[in-house]
Amino acid sequence: MDMRLNQALLTDLYQLTMAQGYWECGKADTQACFHMYFRDYPFKGGYAVACGMAQLAELVEGFTFSEEDIAYLASLPAPGGGKLFHKGFLDYLADFHLSVDIDAVIEGTIVFPYEPIVRVMGPAMECQMLETALLNCVNFETLIATKAARVCLAAQSPVAEFGLRRSQGAAGGLWASRASVIGGCASTSNVLAGKLFDIPVSGTHAHSWVMLFDDELTAFREYAKAFPTNCILLVDTYDVKQGIKNAITVGLEMRERGERLMGIRIDSGDLSWLAKMAREMLDEAGLDDCGIVLSNDLDEYSIKSIRDEGTPVMSWGVGTKLATAYDQPTLGGVYKLSATKDVDDAEWQYTLKISESAAKLTVPGVLDVRRYYLEDGRIAGDMVFDVNAPIAEDETIVDPMDGLRRKHLLGLRYETLFQPLARAGVSVLSDEDRDAMAAQARVKQGLETLDESQKRMLNPHTYPVGLERTLFERRLDLVARLRGIK
Amino acid sequence: MDMRLNQALLTDLYQLTMAQGYWECGKADTQACFHMYFRDYPFKGGYAVACGMAQLAELVEGFTFSEEDIAYLASLPAPGGGKLFHKGFLDYLADFHLSVDIDAVIEGTIVFPYEPIVRVMGPAMECQMLETALLNCVNFETLIATKAARVCLAAQSPVAEFGLRRSQGAAGGLWASRASVIGGCASTSNVLAGKLFDIPVSGTHAHSWVMLFDDELTAFREYAKAFPTNCILLVDTYDVKQGIKNAITVGLEMRERGERLMGIRIDSGDLSWLAKMAREMLDEAGLDDCGIVLSNDLDEYSIKSIRDEGTPVMSWGVGTKLATAYDQPTLGGVYKLSATKDVDDAEWQYTLKISESAAKLTVPGVLDVRRYYLEDGRIAGDMVFDVNAPIAEDETIVDPMDGLRRKHLLGLRYETLFQPLARAGVSVLSDEDRDAMAAQARVKQGLETLDESQKRMLNPHTYPVGLERTLFERRLDLVARLRGIK
Repeated sequence: MDMRLNQALLTDLYQLTMAQGYWECGKADTQACFHMYFRDYPFKGGYAVACGMAQLAELVEGFTFSEEDIAYLASLPAPGGGKLFHKGFLDYLADFHLSVDIDAVIEGTIVFPYEPIVRVMGPAMECQMLETALLNCVNFETLIATKAARVCLAAQSPVAEFGLRRSQGAAGGLWASRASVIGGCASTSNVLAGKLFDIPVSGTHAHSWVMLFDDELTAFREYAKAFPTNCILLVDTYDVKQGIKNAITVGLEMRERGERLMGIRIDSGDLSWLAKMAREMLDEAGLDDCGIVLSNDLDEYSIKSIRDEGTPVMSWGVGTKLATAYDQPTLGGVYKLSATKDVDDAEWQYTLKISESAAKLTVPGVLDVRRYYLEDGRIAGDMVFDVNAPIAEDETIVDPMDGLRRKHLLGLRYETLFQPLARAGVSVLSDEDRDAMAAQARVKQGLETLDESQKRMLNPHTYPVGLERTLFERRLDLVARLRGIK
Repeated sequence: MDMRLNQALLTDLYQLTMAQGYWECGKADTQACFHMYFRDYPFKGGYAVACGMAQLAELVEGFTFSEEDIAYLASLPAPGGGKLFHKGFLDYLADFHLSVDIDAVIEGTIVFPYEPIVRVMGPAMECQMLETALLNCVNFETLIATKAARVCLAAQSPVAEFGLRRSQGAAGGLWASRASVIGGCASTSNVLAGKLFDIPVSGTHAHSWVMLFDDELTAFREYAKAFPTNCILLVDTYDVKQGIKNAITVGLEMRERGERLMGIRIDSGDLSWLAKMAREMLDEAGLDDCGIVLSNDLDEYSIKSIRDEGTPVMSWGVGTKLATAYDQPTLGGVYKLSATKDVDDAEWQYTLKISESAAKLTVPGVLDVRRYYLEDGRIAGDMVFDVNAPIAEDETIVDPMDGLRRKHLLGLRYETLFQPLARAGVSVLSDEDRDAMAAQARVKQGLETLDESQKRMLNPHTYPVGLERTLFERRLDLVARLRGIK
């Protein structure tokens, strides 16, 4: 069974039924503009790492309905009788090719709540057919890349991701591994991810290796023989202290052969206490060049606590809590309509979804983001602006939730965040822009533009993201108008 | 890019490096027996729903290394210099075919902590090469099927799963949709899952439908025209009360045409309060045949609370919190070595991983599970037993964590849970055993064999799962022996 994301059927049924509805009521050519954004800082942190654009480009590249897909849709019954999809619309789908323009921030960009990350413009039907899969990949990968950045900031020494066995599905694990590396992990245990995305892979051995030999010392000796240049021994299969002693025996034997025991790994118990004991035992035996690797249910909090105790750690293995973003397994990003026009060359009409809460009020227009920088390189504020309207001369941003909070950005250097991802339905993302290691470098650079207070693990400083002043005012007017007429 | 699970490279690197190690140190023919099980009730509930066996069968069917895979492995450097994999071993992988026997509970079986769900026997190397992908699919799908069963038990009326946009990756969403239906959901919004797994799909419309028309009433009218036999209107785009009024207008127009407004959907605000208001308004208008559909961040707890208030609900849409198992996004199942033998026709040698805690002590032997039944059809207790040793005549089970807790099951009817999934590396799972709807029926039946106290949402009654008495004693002996000699 084929599970590539680039299948047009990987969507919610209502996207296709709505598309048929538009098609049938003469709205097939209605143009729309949608933006994807999220509302809350993930993990109660101070930033997020945008990811998922490479997969989105793949989605665009493979977005067609096969004969088999059409046959399946044709087979679906309408609940009240008859067929759900009509022949005319299915014929249309059989010849379907995307024609949308997509703009997005480049993978690895630091992003914040309430600013658009992806923009899709084109026939409303197409925009909606892309919604579900777009949200799926950008939500998930941004979440994992952000978690990885947090874990790696806490660790300060290399982190290997090995969450595949606990990740949510195979492809989830695959893209999670890539997103983890983009967020800052030095490597992944996931071999297929290594092959597909050209990212470093790594691993040690399992308890079962030890159990398959008559005793632990023999198991360690055989492992050292098999991997003389890459030997890290897992010491907690039976008893950690005895395991360290056995590792020391093998480490000294390796040294006599001119080899080096690179490290030992501890995967259970009080990791900090055991690591300190191990460090002492290794040093006493003269193996001060043998490092300590820790794993077992680690996340940024437990890693920070271990480091705060001054525990000497060469590297970390992080699995479940990274690959599933355990403490917040979804980003909750949304994809909202912000403008429509009946035909291609008309003017955009702004749209708005009003809700009981200001937090769920959408932003009308065709948007992009300006990121302003202080002279020392730190970021100063992000302005969400309408590309079809002039920016007021004071370059002021207004908090979308609180009109009283404003910030002037006039005179500061800025860059614009959106880059073309697809034009007329064809992906234009370059190989460089899809490269995981280039994105990793971008994250590293981006994190350096944050103030330390924004990188705090808990209760970080909130970064100013606001609507360009006149956009804020247009939105207020539109709310009043919609409340009045509906 | 191909993302099917049946790729031998979808594994942790150390599985392949260990395999090379076994191969090089003359352990290529060492036989092993591994069991997959989990240790904690998911969601602090009283049961789990086994799922993932159909995907496991697919994994077995496609488990080979392509030329491209071999070339990738050959390219990997050893950290200390040279290549990680050696030519002899890569040649072996190029011709590799699985030869393991796999036994598992059938999909949809109710299962409990500390009992094996899957057993893999064969060359140790092969058992380990399967580990990561096996854990990936059984952990994730069991988790989601269990969550779905909890949600559906709380809901009592039909639940539609629509979590794809928030699920962890595309394939995660795909198999999550299938597992949701197995757990009890009436349908999924995921069209590709519907096509691939032959499960029901459903959907209504989005806010954007309303926003694409000049006003809500027009949008509703057009939707009713497009879907006269299947019309459910989303009423909260601008203002819920006005939305209900507009829906009533359209519902009455439909009635005049001999059609029926099937329902309205509310997707924000205080769902219970709004649903009661809507029910009153609909009834007053004579539309008592129009049902109410609720959605927005629902899970078993919020659904139960809404039902406890007596709110009339026709059906539910559940997304994020089901598709990601939000409150516990991983099952944490493990795969542990329990027996080895040097050659095929030797006797099994029992193995054990000792840990600091009794909870992590493994169970030695080649295991299966007997499920005992009371006369009224409820289940009485599960016995984990060694298939190669006689069961003591008193048919007593002993709590693996507490030798004082015992239960006699003598005289009760029982069934054995494992069924063959693969023989000599070839899947033997029948189409019927892979069928999602058949598994859904099995879940329904299985839940009826539980006592009400086990289905309690919080603090449920713990079901007795124990080791067959003589197995418990053999394990004690082995711990003493290993503690003595290691």
